Amino acid sequence: MRQLKLEELGRLSAEEARRSPKLPIWLILENLRSGFNVGSFFRTADAFGIERIVLCGFTPQPPHAEIRKAALGAEDVVAWQFCATVGDVPELLPPGFLKIALEQTDVSVPLHHFRPGSGQGVALWVGNEVHGLSQQALDLCELALEIPQRGFKHSLNVAVAGGIALWHISRLLQSPK
Amino acid sequence: MRQLKLEELGRLSAEEARRSPKLPIWLILENLRSGFNVGSFFRTADAFGIERIVLCGFTPQPPHAEIRKAALGAEDVVAWQFCATVGDVPELLPPGFLKIALEQTDVSVPLHHFRPGSGQGVALWVGNEVHGLSQQALDLCELALEIPQRGFKHSLNVAVAGGIALWHISRLLQSPK
Repeated sequence: MRQLKLEELGRLSAEEARRSPKLPIWLILENLRSGFNVGSFFRTADAFGIERIVLCGFTPQPPHAEIRKAALGAEDVVAWQFCATVGDVPELLPPGFLKIALEQTDVSVPLHHFRPGSGQGVALWVGNEVHGLSQQALDLCELALEIPQRGFKHSLNVAVAGGIALWHISRLLQSPK
Repeated sequence: MRQLKLEELGRLSAEEARRSPKLPIWLILENLRSGFNVGSFFRTADAFGIERIVLCGFTPQPPHAEIRKAALGAEDVVAWQFCATVGDVPELLPPGFLKIALEQTDVSVPLHHFRPGSGQGVALWVGNEVHGLSQQALDLCELALEIPQRGFKHSLNVAVAGGIALWHISRLLQSPK
């Protein structure tokens, strides 16, 4: 077998990518510290057709060198907006979007047990690298999902954890079963 | 709902984590450039109970400041070894392990279509951030898996892509259906 060449990947132009149909998923990033993690999320959002990213609190915003280095231009294609405080996020969301925290909480559901309804819009909330989501954010969410973990740390890199959750949710929204 | 405290996560001590049963999954990293990505893989491997990491070619090895910063100590718990060239990897692998390239190739199978047999050992090969897996590595693998992507870049961060693949494979090995 051989690796596909860039021109065989069926990549869209920046303009086509902006106009292409998206999945009804918004990603809410609360107080992320690292521009590299934010950039990685832009790349994931582009790859999976996520509708919008909301950068909350002190989360770095484009233009930003670390975001650029990790996102490789995806930050120019994925729709995003700034929101100073998570308390203002719910009124930004499209009606009916399910507010989901990605967090290990006292009532969180294992990611692989989550089955969104067909056509269900989802707002996935992801928190700070060290502290996770704030209590204010958790109070706004209707559901928490956790990625079952074992071992020593019980803690994935935030962009890896978010990528896994976006993979799972985007697959289900594309082929609800 | 409330975030779980560290002491509620059921985390293992370093010694318990080393001795805990692992999934029959080896992760082969060929010529990764970034110690942060390698460190992120150590954390993912710890979280999902991966048996061993093989660091090939010029992939950074512990002890290494970037690995430490991203792995947060998981590099002291997950078994790993160095291998100068990918050509020597097959003889290191346990018998019967399926050699899988994570790569967009002319014959790659969408990740979500992959169903390993019950008890099947898996060696997942992941390549360089820019160039992916070498032709030599691809020639050694029996199967390629790709993460279906749309959009502008068609390219996930390598630690995000590997994390998604390890999530999918580790879930299937735990509950084959």
